[in-house]
Amino acid sequence: MADVARAVGVSTGTVSRALRGRPGVSEETRGRILRAAESLDYVVSPAASGLVTGRTGSVAVLVPFISRWFHARALAGAHRVLRRAGFEIVLHHVEGSAERHEFFETLPVRRRADGLLVIALSLAEEELRRLGALGLPVVGAGTEPGDRPAAAIDDTAGAAKAVRHLVNLGHRRIGMIRSTDDEGVHQGVSRRRLAGYRAALTEAGLEIPDDAVVSAPWGIDGGARAMGELLSLRTPPTAVFAEADEVAIGALRTLRRAGVPVPGRMSVVGFDDSPMAELLDLTTVAQSVYEQGAIAGRMLVEAVRHGGVREPRVRLGTTLVPRGTTAAPSGPGGSRGPAGGGREQPG
Amino acid sequence: MADVARAVGVSTGTVSRALRGRPGVSEETRGRILRAAESLDYVVSPAASGLVTGRTGSVAVLVPFISRWFHARALAGAHRVLRRAGFEIVLHHVEGSAERHEFFETLPVRRRADGLLVIALSLAEEELRRLGALGLPVVGAGTEPGDRPAAAIDDTAGAAKAVRHLVNLGHRRIGMIRSTDDEGVHQGVSRRRLAGYRAALTEAGLEIPDDAVVSAPWGIDGGARAMGELLSLRTPPTAVFAEADEVAIGALRTLRRAGVPVPGRMSVVGFDDSPMAELLDLTTVAQSVYEQGAIAGRMLVEAVRHGGVREPRVRLGTTLVPRGTTAAPSGPGGSRGPAGGGREQPG
Repeated sequence: MADVARAVGVSTGTVSRALRGRPGVSEETRGRILRAAESLDYVVSPAASGLVTGRTGSVAVLVPFISRWFHARALAGAHRVLRRAGFEIVLHHVEGSAERHEFFETLPVRRRADGLLVIALSLAEEELRRLGALGLPVVGAGTEPGDRPAAAIDDTAGAAKAVRHLVNLGHRRIGMIRSTDDEGVHQGVSRRRLAGYRAALTEAGLEIPDDAVVSAPWGIDGGARAMGELLSLRTPPTAVFAEADEVAIGALRTLRRAGVPVPGRMSVVGFDDSPMAELLDLTTVAQSVYEQGAIAGRMLVEAVRHGGVREPRVRLGTTLVPRGTTAAPSGPGGSRGPAGGGREQPG
Repeated sequence: MADVARAVGVSTGTVSRALRGRPGVSEETRGRILRAAESLDYVVSPAASGLVTGRTGSVAVLVPFISRWFHARALAGAHRVLRRAGFEIVLHHVEGSAERHEFFETLPVRRRADGLLVIALSLAEEELRRLGALGLPVVGAGTEPGDRPAAAIDDTAGAAKAVRHLVNLGHRRIGMIRSTDDEGVHQGVSRRRLAGYRAALTEAGLEIPDDAVVSAPWGIDGGARAMGELLSLRTPPTAVFAEADEVAIGALRTLRRAGVPVPGRMSVVGFDDSPMAELLDLTTVAQSVYEQGAIAGRMLVEAVRHGGVREPRVRLGTTLVPRGTTAAPSGPGGSRGPAGGGREQPG
């Protein structure tokens, strides 16, 4: 470090601050120091540096289901921001509930990270309590972990948009497909989207058809199975809100195999606006996923560096994207449903 | 550490080995030590431990395009194995060529990781040389970085299977859609799959229709554009091999919009067998992606712990999955092509 300081003509303290990315060094000086350090092949030993500063230079990212589009996109957004801020990103991927339990039992981020970013995982009270005991900044992306800072959407409002679109098209009997995790539990996102579905039906004066709210494991196969259940009801709905695009796509598969025309006999709306939704011309509710990751990443940098976040709760908007899987109901099912709302069906 | 040793009745050396996951401690003893350490709330400071052992306890994973199904799946497989072996996974996501160049310029894994896993990135000579200078074990998943250990498939053989399937159906004029990165460069996987395409045509005695080998940026839009090019040829092919499912799906979109029946007038084969391929009934070449990540992860554990890998090159098989987008050619285009192979077209 003394060699670098001599080469640049600054103190070793300045070199130290510059190399560790701390404030108090101008960008110009930092650049000269980094170039000198590189030419002298000076590498901070993170272990030695960590003993001095008490910081690790790492942030942990807890993410389930990385193979799903949503999670990977949010991670990409967070990674970019965190990496540019000079942090290493330690990945904790929990593929199922067993790994999730293990993470919260062992808390492998203790003394190994300066902060934790949680992507799209609804945390239970006990999990929040355990994280709290770590004394680390925790930020959510695509989820709001307790009162911690977070960048997310309003799932309830987004789901209500999807269902209102169906109501406005004239549907009176509208079902919903929900998803469960590998233990058969509805996560927070599923509960919030159910609340939006219910709110939109209630505000339209429609009854909530409880038999037409079905659950299945998350994914295409689950969505396919759930749609099979809906088709076997005494009075199937004329439209369905699926809590995620992947689930809606499974529902479309069943409808195609069953020969039910979409949207002629059944309208389907998803949620997320994944690339598959566009490809399959699926009506859905769009959200900015990469941005949720990036904003949450920025919040975590702020929390680690300054101990707090100025704007700790960012709610990004959602937009209904009408495509080819929704239309006004046709045939007897549309107006004859038991719900009998106020509005007349158009066309 | 002395407290833990006293509680369990072993030496502090044994406690140290057990907590650091080193060999020479029985599973039973390790279990007792871990439980005692937990009840005494003993946490190894990684920084302090690293200064003693010279190890970091971390491995770095370099992965491009995490939002793509292939990369996320391979990462999930590697993560599971590495995590179970007690390593932290430091994620280096390179979204484009600029970030890739930056990674190899700055090599942020120096002194920060015990090894490096490279997922699905074809490394250039210079990049390999730079990694070599680090003195770290490097393992590839879905790619073979120089002579380093790797778990991958034989892309050339896989591509030849796809094209042979088209030849066997009676196609004589077979095109190919290739992909480029954001700098317009064909990566290694694209070069190998082109070699397989050429080999299959040559062994069938067919000419390689150079005008029917087109390139576009990777993805659905690129595939769509490339298919547009093929449709504007004086003699379009009757079948197309797309180097990845995502690209094939873009090609299908163009064909649907252009009103070209698939497979009636155009057969399409992809590569990878992503969930989208199954959904869209796309004929493709399947590979085991999660397994490539998991096997490469195991190799890296072996390389870090023992300084070498017993079976350093694992090649997983590929399987042709015939679905609804391929059939024998019909109409004049099928037999009138300029190639004029040996076999007659059936039907």
